[in-house]
Amino acid sequence: MPFSHELRVRYGECDAQGIVFNANFLAFVDVALTEIWRQSMGSYDLLLETGVDTVVGEANMRFLLPGRFDDVLRIEGGFDDLGTTSATLRLWFHRGDELLVEADIRYVFVDLGSWEKVEIPEVVRRGLGPLLLG
Amino acid sequence: MPFSHELRVRYGECDAQGIVFNANFLAFVDVALTEIWRQSMGSYDLLLETGVDTVVGEANMRFLLPGRFDDVLRIEGGFDDLGTTSATLRLWFHRGDELLVEADIRYVFVDLGSWEKVEIPEVVRRGLGPLLLG
Amino acid sequence: MPFSHELRVRYGECDAQGIVFNANFLAFVDVALTEIWRQSMGSYDLLLETGVDTVVGEANMRFLLPGRFDDVLRIEGGFDDLGTTSATLRLWFHRGDELLVEADIRYVFVDLGSWEKVEIPEVVRRGLGPLLLG
Amino acid sequence: MPFSHELRVRYGECDAQGIVFNANFLAFVDVALTEIWRQSMGSYDLLLETGVDTVVGEANMRFLLPGRFDDVLRIEGGFDDLGTTSATLRLWFHRGDELLVEADIRYVFVDLGSWEKVEIPEVVRRGLGPLLLG
Repeated sequence: MPFSHELRVRYGECDAQGIVFNANFLAFVDVALTEIWRQSMGSYDLLLETGVDTVVGEANMRFLLPGRFDDVLRIEGGFDDLGTTSATLRLWFHRGDELLVEADIRYVFVDLGSWEKVEIPEVVRRGLGPLLLG
Repeated sequence: MPFSHELRVRYGECDAQGIVFNANFLAFVDVALTEIWRQSMGSYDLLLETGVDTVVGEANMRFLLPGRFDDVLRIEGGFDDLGTTSATLRLWFHRGDELLVEADIRYVFVDLGSWEKVEIPEVVRRGLGPLLLG
Repeated sequence: MPFSHELRVRYGECDAQGIVFNANFLAFVDVALTEIWRQSMGSYDLLLETGVDTVVGEANMRFLLPGRFDDVLRIEGGFDDLGTTSATLRLWFHRGDELLVEADIRYVFVDLGSWEKVEIPEVVRRGLGPLLLG
Repeated sequence: MPFSHELRVRYGECDAQGIVFNANFLAFVDVALTEIWRQSMGSYDLLLETGVDTVVGEANMRFLLPGRFDDVLRIEGGFDDLGTTSATLRLWFHRGDELLVEADIRYVFVDLGSWEKVEIPEVVRRGLGPLLLG
């Protein structure tokens, strides 16, 4: 997998069912995205310096097994394809050998000033190259 | 729409982009679900008394426009269909006339003791009847 | 009490102990603050138009009884005093007749541009007048 | 300092002011507490096996400087004293040489079954010994 990152589930991220509250997996996707910009562009701030930012256009998640307090989650994945103005990130959340959650997130690139949809800048496209799924 | 509920966006629910952090829309779906159990079963606790609970199996969300601090969001929707052991809730988040987010959430019914998938109890099926989309 | 506001505890705001995660009470304080600006200045945005904002300087909280899912919390209180550049808000969280949490929060007024400490503008001081505790 | 732990500020933990939302520092305290149980008892689950849990009785926090997205926060501290049924944890949040936040949190020990206040078990008292501030 071109991308891999680990995080540990916090107590306050679990709900009264004793499992990770589902919305927190979408928050974990955003933690992964920060690491993806670090790996591809140096940092999220360096992405912003190219004059673009991203917003989430679509999020599709499948929950297979619950996460639990103190689990170390391994988040793996990469980009499925880079479109003209958007890119789809596919992530798999594992705990050891178990697959807990699959997430497909479509990010839309927008101009930092106008927040209008823009083409992915060439420098960003090059940065994301090593993160493409085979 | 069989279901409608309003909530006001909190300051801490917005991120450094000044818009509602995307994961919070999935948290808002859960707020809607609590109201759905109140409307259909009397309360979430009364659902639990039937011996079942639900877990999220799938969440598919489309983000069309950003939500902002202090927006009053109108969450409307209902169930698309009731399967044997799962049900899909469709929700639309509006701010006035604008559609911000669409969410399709598939809930799986599980036994409260074993957390195994179970058939939707008849009493729950009857309670959810008025919440079916046309 | 000069200020009163109600909110309902969400499922995702409770942790694996089945009670409101303590940090969420500090988030609820911020919900109250938004309503305080609405009541005193018309809205938080109208506060910002005076050229100042506030940051939390100190938060002192006593937790007497746990909050639970679906509780309707009544948040009451007001300002203890208005200093030159800061003001202390005292809030009490009730569920029916029970007192759950007491919070004293010192807000520091800062210039919107420089984020330096500034005197409370006269118009803000007048707006907060009706919110002073006896 | 007897206790030290690092964490990186997430994007979604910052609010529209572009700084760490104040309530999240109280959530960070809980992350530190999990690590404190790991260091002193092996894990939080092993604390629970002694038949006790803790609840927050009091939280007193001073906010000196704002935290920002992607900051690596160093959380240092230890226990001020161990009372009969409660213990006060003092934590300091640093970013490099800067002190951002000070937190004093009084934890009350409760019986796992009844949630009544109980004396700190001897095995817990021994575990926390190395975490006492000089």
